Amino acid sequence: MYTLEEIDHILTNFAKLRNIRREPANLYEPLDYMMSIGGKRIRPKLCLLTYNLMSDDFRNPIVFPAMALEVFHEFTLIHDDIMDRSDTRRGNPTVYKKWNENVAILSGDAMSILSYQYLAHAPEKVLPQALELFSATAMQVCEGQQYDMDFEEMPFITMEDYLGMIGLKTAVLLACSAKLGALIGGAAPEACDALYRFGYELGLAFQITDDYLDTFGNEKVFGKKIGGDITHNKKTWLLVEGIRRAAGEQKMQLEQFMQLGEEDREEKVEAVRNLYVELGVKEAAAAEILVYHRKALKALEEAGFDEENTLVLRQFAEEIIHREK
Amino acid sequence: MYTLEEIDHILTNFAKLRNIRREPANLYEPLDYMMSIGGKRIRPKLCLLTYNLMSDDFRNPIVFPAMALEVFHEFTLIHDDIMDRSDTRRGNPTVYKKWNENVAILSGDAMSILSYQYLAHAPEKVLPQALELFSATAMQVCEGQQYDMDFEEMPFITMEDYLGMIGLKTAVLLACSAKLGALIGGAAPEACDALYRFGYELGLAFQITDDYLDTFGNEKVFGKKIGGDITHNKKTWLLVEGIRRAAGEQKMQLEQFMQLGEEDREEKVEAVRNLYVELGVKEAAAAEILVYHRKALKALEEAGFDEENTLVLRQFAEEIIHREK
Repeated sequence: MYTLEEIDHILTNFAKLRNIRREPANLYEPLDYMMSIGGKRIRPKLCLLTYNLMSDDFRNPIVFPAMALEVFHEFTLIHDDIMDRSDTRRGNPTVYKKWNENVAILSGDAMSILSYQYLAHAPEKVLPQALELFSATAMQVCEGQQYDMDFEEMPFITMEDYLGMIGLKTAVLLACSAKLGALIGGAAPEACDALYRFGYELGLAFQITDDYLDTFGNEKVFGKKIGGDITHNKKTWLLVEGIRRAAGEQKMQLEQFMQLGEEDREEKVEAVRNLYVELGVKEAAAAEILVYHRKALKALEEAGFDEENTLVLRQFAEEIIHREK
Repeated sequence: MYTLEEIDHILTNFAKLRNIRREPANLYEPLDYMMSIGGKRIRPKLCLLTYNLMSDDFRNPIVFPAMALEVFHEFTLIHDDIMDRSDTRRGNPTVYKKWNENVAILSGDAMSILSYQYLAHAPEKVLPQALELFSATAMQVCEGQQYDMDFEEMPFITMEDYLGMIGLKTAVLLACSAKLGALIGGAAPEACDALYRFGYELGLAFQITDDYLDTFGNEKVFGKKIGGDITHNKKTWLLVEGIRRAAGEQKMQLEQFMQLGEEDREEKVEAVRNLYVELGVKEAAAAEILVYHRKALKALEEAGFDEENTLVLRQFAEEIIHREK
């Protein structure tokens, strides 16, 4: 079994070898740029980890498909940044900002095709299933992004709406990552499905953690300004729960704070944070994250592997949930 | 062997059955809209025609992949229309105009994924090759679009540049269409490659015809205003050849006309058209189209099928080149 650090090296080495120096430059430079900014690569890691439950053979038929998940994820980020008009990502200019919108559209398109080229390295006997899983997931991610954009136009949404949306936008890709590794590793269908559920619950925990840290994280560790979601009235777990809990006086306050603009940023963030604490939303979020974490661990048990073999996976789950940034 | 009309029915019936009534509406309505506007469906037709050289069995393993080509093509159109800021296509509002840019980006993304879902219906034993062909082609189409956009920023390009660009942007997809049908039909590799070349040369003839008709077509038949390319100084075969041939007085005239703006549209179109005639560009374009048509027919011969079996394919080639619109 490989450790998390060794899995990390496998992926870093792969990315270094895959430099895409091709023409036209305006199409391929943004791809290299995105790959070089990197990120935590949690999706390919998860894929390699579940694969590792069955095999130690880390040649192309598993590493390429694992990286297909990362390439696909980065494609969604390039296009999301256009749709959200975001200038920065991970502290760097977005492709949209660094080049322009047309370049971002087209290089994103090229990345989505590249992800299928990487996926195609999967062993022939599992290729049809891998494709089906990957494409279904990819479509769901688009649905999630559409719901996210639709929801921004609505005054409020229910917790059910929110969980459905993050399920599609974030959780299914982690679920797919976990299942893909198992599929390629030759695990039985029930184990593959249990690992899918593991990835899904982990994905929910991960996204709610993301929402939590944006408001309650440590700015120095987090690497970006706290309070972005509050500033933009983004429908996070915190806001959805806050609106649900608030009544009377607190409801009025929340509505007033939400009216505040960019110029009152600091006041707004401070005020809404405090309201979340008063309403018990901060505590509830932390508790909810634990609930999904536990559900994930339960699904992992149902996959039927020995505890000593699932240790690294459980460490991985810990790390991505109880992270500072 | 099916006739062109029967092939057309197969595709129309398929499109009617595949209505995608799903949610969220903002993601799937644009897909249905694009499929309903339809078009000539030349790419899936070509695929079915080459397949028909080998087989009469037109069930899902061939019709879905054939339609994958159409879905992919429509995805490129949705995104191209954003990048070109086009309001209309085939006489209808573009998705970009009818909805908005974000919807156009995301529904385009969904279409590209859908194309892979359709392709995945190809028989398992040819799936790896079909995927490789399709993805390589898709990537080349992105390259072609990037070159097209890059070239718009340049004062002039060579004929070599132009042919390379339309090769990538248009011809490879027709080549892929022809080869895919042969692949799925089980043709020998040499026949598959000859049919690829047939599609490629046909694609070049098709694009140059497109350029020709935009300037010299019959507006009533063509269905759209003549002279759009001239108005926008688009680097078509005509302009590239015109710049190459023009010298002295005619060079100066051409440069002057290219400076004219939207407000002098009619004057500009008239003037440049006449210059093309004077320079012999109009005749040369018609001759060039014939050259590529002949190359296509030669490649088709090299595929090694009986003349009576390739009749419908040759009729198809005639129709798409010697079309009025």
